[in-house]
Amino acid sequence: MKFYDDEISSRLLIGTALYPSPAIMLEAIKASKAEIVTVSLRRESGTEQAGQNFWSFIKDSGAKVLPNTAGCKSVKEAVTTAHMAREIFETPWVKLEVIGEDDSLQPDVFGLVEAARILSEDGFQVFPYTTEDLVVAEKLISAGCEILMPWGAPIGSGRGLNNIYGLRSLRAHFPNIPLIVDAGIGLPSHAAAAMELGYDAVLLNTAVAKAGDPVLMAKAFALAIESGLQCYQADPIEKRDMAAPSTPVAGLPFWNQDHA
Amino acid sequence: MKFYDDEISSRLLIGTALYPSPAIMLEAIKASKAEIVTVSLRRESGTEQAGQNFWSFIKDSGAKVLPNTAGCKSVKEAVTTAHMAREIFETPWVKLEVIGEDDSLQPDVFGLVEAARILSEDGFQVFPYTTEDLVVAEKLISAGCEILMPWGAPIGSGRGLNNIYGLRSLRAHFPNIPLIVDAGIGLPSHAAAAMELGYDAVLLNTAVAKAGDPVLMAKAFALAIESGLQCYQADPIEKRDMAAPSTPVAGLPFWNQDHA
Amino acid sequence: MKFYDDEISSRLLIGTALYPSPAIMLEAIKASKAEIVTVSLRRESGTEQAGQNFWSFIKDSGAKVLPNTAGCKSVKEAVTTAHMAREIFETPWVKLEVIGEDDSLQPDVFGLVEAARILSEDGFQVFPYTTEDLVVAEKLISAGCEILMPWGAPIGSGRGLNNIYGLRSLRAHFPNIPLIVDAGIGLPSHAAAAMELGYDAVLLNTAVAKAGDPVLMAKAFALAIESGLQCYQADPIEKRDMAAPSTPVAGLPFWNQDHA
Amino acid sequence: MKFYDDEISSRLLIGTALYPSPAIMLEAIKASKAEIVTVSLRRESGTEQAGQNFWSFIKDSGAKVLPNTAGCKSVKEAVTTAHMAREIFETPWVKLEVIGEDDSLQPDVFGLVEAARILSEDGFQVFPYTTEDLVVAEKLISAGCEILMPWGAPIGSGRGLNNIYGLRSLRAHFPNIPLIVDAGIGLPSHAAAAMELGYDAVLLNTAVAKAGDPVLMAKAFALAIESGLQCYQADPIEKRDMAAPSTPVAGLPFWNQDHA
Repeated sequence: MKFYDDEISSRLLIGTALYPSPAIMLEAIKASKAEIVTVSLRRESGTEQAGQNFWSFIKDSGAKVLPNTAGCKSVKEAVTTAHMAREIFETPWVKLEVIGEDDSLQPDVFGLVEAARILSEDGFQVFPYTTEDLVVAEKLISAGCEILMPWGAPIGSGRGLNNIYGLRSLRAHFPNIPLIVDAGIGLPSHAAAAMELGYDAVLLNTAVAKAGDPVLMAKAFALAIESGLQCYQADPIEKRDMAAPSTPVAGLPFWNQDHA
Repeated sequence: MKFYDDEISSRLLIGTALYPSPAIMLEAIKASKAEIVTVSLRRESGTEQAGQNFWSFIKDSGAKVLPNTAGCKSVKEAVTTAHMAREIFETPWVKLEVIGEDDSLQPDVFGLVEAARILSEDGFQVFPYTTEDLVVAEKLISAGCEILMPWGAPIGSGRGLNNIYGLRSLRAHFPNIPLIVDAGIGLPSHAAAAMELGYDAVLLNTAVAKAGDPVLMAKAFALAIESGLQCYQADPIEKRDMAAPSTPVAGLPFWNQDHA
Repeated sequence: MKFYDDEISSRLLIGTALYPSPAIMLEAIKASKAEIVTVSLRRESGTEQAGQNFWSFIKDSGAKVLPNTAGCKSVKEAVTTAHMAREIFETPWVKLEVIGEDDSLQPDVFGLVEAARILSEDGFQVFPYTTEDLVVAEKLISAGCEILMPWGAPIGSGRGLNNIYGLRSLRAHFPNIPLIVDAGIGLPSHAAAAMELGYDAVLLNTAVAKAGDPVLMAKAFALAIESGLQCYQADPIEKRDMAAPSTPVAGLPFWNQDHA
Repeated sequence: MKFYDDEISSRLLIGTALYPSPAIMLEAIKASKAEIVTVSLRRESGTEQAGQNFWSFIKDSGAKVLPNTAGCKSVKEAVTTAHMAREIFETPWVKLEVIGEDDSLQPDVFGLVEAARILSEDGFQVFPYTTEDLVVAEKLISAGCEILMPWGAPIGSGRGLNNIYGLRSLRAHFPNIPLIVDAGIGLPSHAAAAMELGYDAVLLNTAVAKAGDPVLMAKAFALAIESGLQCYQADPIEKRDMAAPSTPVAGLPFWNQDHA
């Protein structure tokens, strides 16, 4: 599938924060088979992850960088950060976060749309971190976004898909826009469920980075996402209220039939 | 892991009914990487699936056969069928179904325990199709079962895990008994969720056989089950009520820090 | 509706354990408008609730007593307790509990059916505390029970209806048997939901007795259960996937129409 | 509680559309004990409900009128409709709907905030129909709203509370703002659940008007909402994972203790 002008095959995008060490991060990224990693420009100071070391690790991963504006709370801050990101990472891509509330870290959909318009007009290819709101989605598309990243649940919460009905509606309304569930995923089954709903990809970070074994968890998510995609393509059965025998039992046992 | 005396590596067990054709069944079994297939002795008459053809297809799959007593509604019928199965398939294994109700195809737990005792005493290695009832589980273990197969939902319903709380309790109470979710699975995310709960394996049939593309769906389930197993081993994060920033934002952007 | 030979109008049955004081218990029972209270013969020693005081309080409530066999773990113990209850309370009614597991306090369905048969044959009118298992339900009816009391969730857990699908199936299979959800209810909305499923009544204890204000909570449950019953009788709307305007908007505002 | 300057006691607000007849509407309103009815200025033409008849029925109900801007899709349309409503109904109140999407009839949160600001500045007391979005809620409050009406689910869908987590977060963030769940309620248990979350009131229409028996359903909702309010005030028990015996069983049966 295409994310703007780039052909993408892996459906898992992965974050680069919160790992026990850069080495484990690198190994987890490889295990995830992600082709795209998100990188924040605003990083904790005084840690090993801040600085050249971290950056060279990202390069070693061979992945395409999707810079993000994590932690930005205003349009101006997000736009400025995006510009710096473009310069440093030499990419028109930006995962646009305009955070509106500290506890839920949810998008400020007003600032988001405005920043998306400013950046799109300036040549950025914007990946907006948004809610499942259909009207906000329309505005983002009008603002120039060719991709949408609705949340599953608050960042880092691990709650999975809080509003499956809303996510299903969003998918139904925008059949031709790449849709990526971003944030809130806790378990591989959540990621599989997102793909089964017809989503195009999943972006996650905490669920891998903070797992007991981040590398193994990265593998688990890679499998789950591939699985959900295949399921969607394979046309699953519908839920039924009553049981349906998988083994119809009319007639005689078959070994009798053979010799009848 | 071990199912009685046999070392098993694949965590997916697959049924052999309801496929569009024996050829597709064979291909789906291979795609699922299942090492164990369940086969019913009571089969619909007059179809291509009944008879030598079907049987040779099963043999071609290379899988170990777990004969089942699908469609049996009494202890006597189930025991008789199990004996025939042992003779034909030359295995002590039997997936024991004693069906108690036509609409839900649910186990008759009374008949189940009785039949399990009779068969266990006669040298069978019984895989009982049961509910999530803890007390029934105890009785089955006392009757000689070294493995349990609780349902997720009624056979063929595709509803997934109807009673997650009950399944979690069962797992907590029997940490050392192999537990296989059998029946009701509709989507790969359901199967992954079962494994994330700590279940040892999943048995399914309809969700693959009746999918639009059974072979692709078999692959999807194989991945999902492997994914859920890895997740369980990798120690997933806990759900949180509030968001947790995956990118802590204290301090300056990191490129400033590098050059400070 | 009828519970055996008795015409009952209140759909709430209430327990008599765990209240802060007998006086609050009495007030809560009155607030609940319950006509039936369950009373256990096995009570904690050394507390105010044990003894004549407690018993006179129950009498003051004016409610019909449904003695229970709470805490009994074997058929013999339950049968003996039931006999003592009949003598003391001078009623053929007994809420039959045969507990099979300490953590979940779930029914031992094997012991339950056996004890139900023994007691029914001996003239008792048995209210069996059971699971949502359809086959067990059939056995209980065959054993002489004319009423069933499936659990919502483990006793005292406050989890509500753990397996809505199972409870709905049970209702569908036994349209003419009084069905009472017993145990696990935590909130009035849980009780209302049980009645909306078509259940005939709800039995609860902990949710009222351990609430901050037991008397007010008793009122809340009384309203919720009445509400759920009325909803069931009033034929509720079906869920829809899409919105439906409650205010169709074709045409002009109505004040224009009036003057057109 | 207060809605702007008015003291309100009933926690149920009810709509006036879709009833089988004006007489049934009137009876249902009375049965609901609602003190506030919402009335749309845009009504289907050519029906009995359009016109003076309808209007005199509303007056007969004795309820306070909350005019709404149902069907308005732009700020201008909503503002104009609100002005007409103020003139006709002689009230500063307006339930502000700015619909952003035809299938979900969901709010256009951008237009909503803008219209809320315009109307508030013009002396209206705005009841905005919004989503559970916390940031939108902040904007509405900044725009002058002293009350919020988040949706439970799309209008007329009867789905209940689609995003309980989001609604709970909204309540936690705005402890002092009256919050009314508006739209999507299908069953009394949904309404009770909203109140149990600490919501102040519920507004509904379709669930009553399109029920088989609207008058009985109105009663059912009145009880459920009262019940949920009482539950919230009575401090309900917490959910537990394991069972807790409502009848502790240490010691002897109490009748033995009495005579010991």
